[in-house]
Amino acid sequence: MKNEVLVVGSVAFDTIENANGSVQRVLGGAASYASLCASYFAKPSVVAVVGTDFSDRDRAPFVRRGVDLEGLQIKEGKTFHWGGCYDKDFNTAVTRFTELNVFQDFNPVLTERQKKAKAVFLANIDPELQLAVLNQVKNPKIVACDTMNYWISSKKETLLEVIKRIDVLFLNESEARQLTGEYNLIKAGRLLLEQGVKYVVIKLGSNGAMLVSRVGIAQLPPYILEHVHDTTGAGDTFGGGFTGYLASLRKWDRLTAIKRAMMIGNVMASFTIESFSVDRLAGLTQTDIDKRLKEYTSMLKF
Amino acid sequence: MKNEVLVVGSVAFDTIENANGSVQRVLGGAASYASLCASYFAKPSVVAVVGTDFSDRDRAPFVRRGVDLEGLQIKEGKTFHWGGCYDKDFNTAVTRFTELNVFQDFNPVLTERQKKAKAVFLANIDPELQLAVLNQVKNPKIVACDTMNYWISSKKETLLEVIKRIDVLFLNESEARQLTGEYNLIKAGRLLLEQGVKYVVIKLGSNGAMLVSRVGIAQLPPYILEHVHDTTGAGDTFGGGFTGYLASLRKWDRLTAIKRAMMIGNVMASFTIESFSVDRLAGLTQTDIDKRLKEYTSMLKF
Repeated sequence: MKNEVLVVGSVAFDTIENANGSVQRVLGGAASYASLCASYFAKPSVVAVVGTDFSDRDRAPFVRRGVDLEGLQIKEGKTFHWGGCYDKDFNTAVTRFTELNVFQDFNPVLTERQKKAKAVFLANIDPELQLAVLNQVKNPKIVACDTMNYWISSKKETLLEVIKRIDVLFLNESEARQLTGEYNLIKAGRLLLEQGVKYVVIKLGSNGAMLVSRVGIAQLPPYILEHVHDTTGAGDTFGGGFTGYLASLRKWDRLTAIKRAMMIGNVMASFTIESFSVDRLAGLTQTDIDKRLKEYTSMLKF
Repeated sequence: MKNEVLVVGSVAFDTIENANGSVQRVLGGAASYASLCASYFAKPSVVAVVGTDFSDRDRAPFVRRGVDLEGLQIKEGKTFHWGGCYDKDFNTAVTRFTELNVFQDFNPVLTERQKKAKAVFLANIDPELQLAVLNQVKNPKIVACDTMNYWISSKKETLLEVIKRIDVLFLNESEARQLTGEYNLIKAGRLLLEQGVKYVVIKLGSNGAMLVSRVGIAQLPPYILEHVHDTTGAGDTFGGGFTGYLASLRKWDRLTAIKRAMMIGNVMASFTIESFSVDRLAGLTQTDIDKRLKEYTSMLKF
């Protein structure tokens, strides 16, 4: 019996163009990537909202992976739809349109079962909604949270309220610098520890991830991938895998567990970037995952 | 009896300004950093040129570390002097002046003993001089080579001649892209393998280093340092430690040895950036080095 991990965030459609091609209105959204990834380690349950245009086909990957959709609200209207294009080397994503649609009035309401989830992953959404979820859950063992530059500039105070109440914070390099005003990532991480969070995980994109915590700091490389197809959702996958793995442990609050969670985040993200949408991520076997984990640890053996 | 490693490059004075202070006319130069670093693993011997202003005090760190200076030419005039300043976060170095002085007419002439060196490190100098050295050495077991953007744009053909004849090439991310026209670092590395080099080591600055070779690819994180004092010479230290370590082995041409050499390059570079000049690097104990190597491998254990 897998432990439950609650994932709150967006379930959306993406329209993406990059050097490898383009796709229209494919399944995306932070909660989709995170919950599908977490499903390999725990029993994910989603809190999100979609429109009446969200079909059984869109639901299929979740169903196949055993993701609980009881908390997926369906509202009259259209599902959140993001359009963007990447440059040749995935350095910059330019947003072409953001149609929030039913997501605009999203109000996360947890089921009784979700309130008792062992682990919570607050994917990248308005920190006020993240707080609303924290006010509903009953004593979860792990709370992890992702955010983005938009919330740091528009709702910093609320975000700091969230940070006080979580165990793990994910951000990327520029977000860590933006939130703290400190360029040095370790110093930025330490400033965030002072805000009350236990583990700060700075996602370094193609350079892996860095951990800053009171029990230790670490920098772990990525799982090296020669051909990158689309980077959309890589960070969400990282967060979902990280949290899902920790949820599966009896004792997660220690350095070795956190480092393994980072390794799993890195390896799982490598699958996401091998295809558009969740195509690759949603169809993995345990063998696929074990093979890469083995390659990863083997790369770091001396 | 340590194996001999020949280091060819600049022995110079640096005048540096950064957020931590400034120093004037301190010992610098690629061959200084590389040979002092290599001295912890092998017996380095320098081929370089200095002016008559190069004093016994300037020579002292080499003497203390057992670096053979027989091949250090002394020419009437002044020693090569570089002046530069870094921004707050060591992202950019702006050159204030480059006084080549006696280095302008440097003609590397190897002693009979140097010609028989087991290992050769061609630090960053004019590829024509690197070729001149390759034409003098007698069947070295390992030849490693560093370069920079200036030579890639001004003497690319000569540099490619050098690359045909070496075992290991060091470059940084932008140099790898500049030299190959390929953004993806693994693909860039593979293009360089096609040019005849066996191991391409891409230095990633604060993100460690990446290896591209026919026997495997790897990305290794840096030794994490919270306080960076001055990054001058970090890359030269990496190359010197890498080559010196390989020179100490009976069998260097295999993936595990190369990965260990990268680890040693990363760890040794962490000492260099803890002070201006070679102050920290030249005064290490075996315990200092072993401690960081142990911390490094421990960080990468799961």
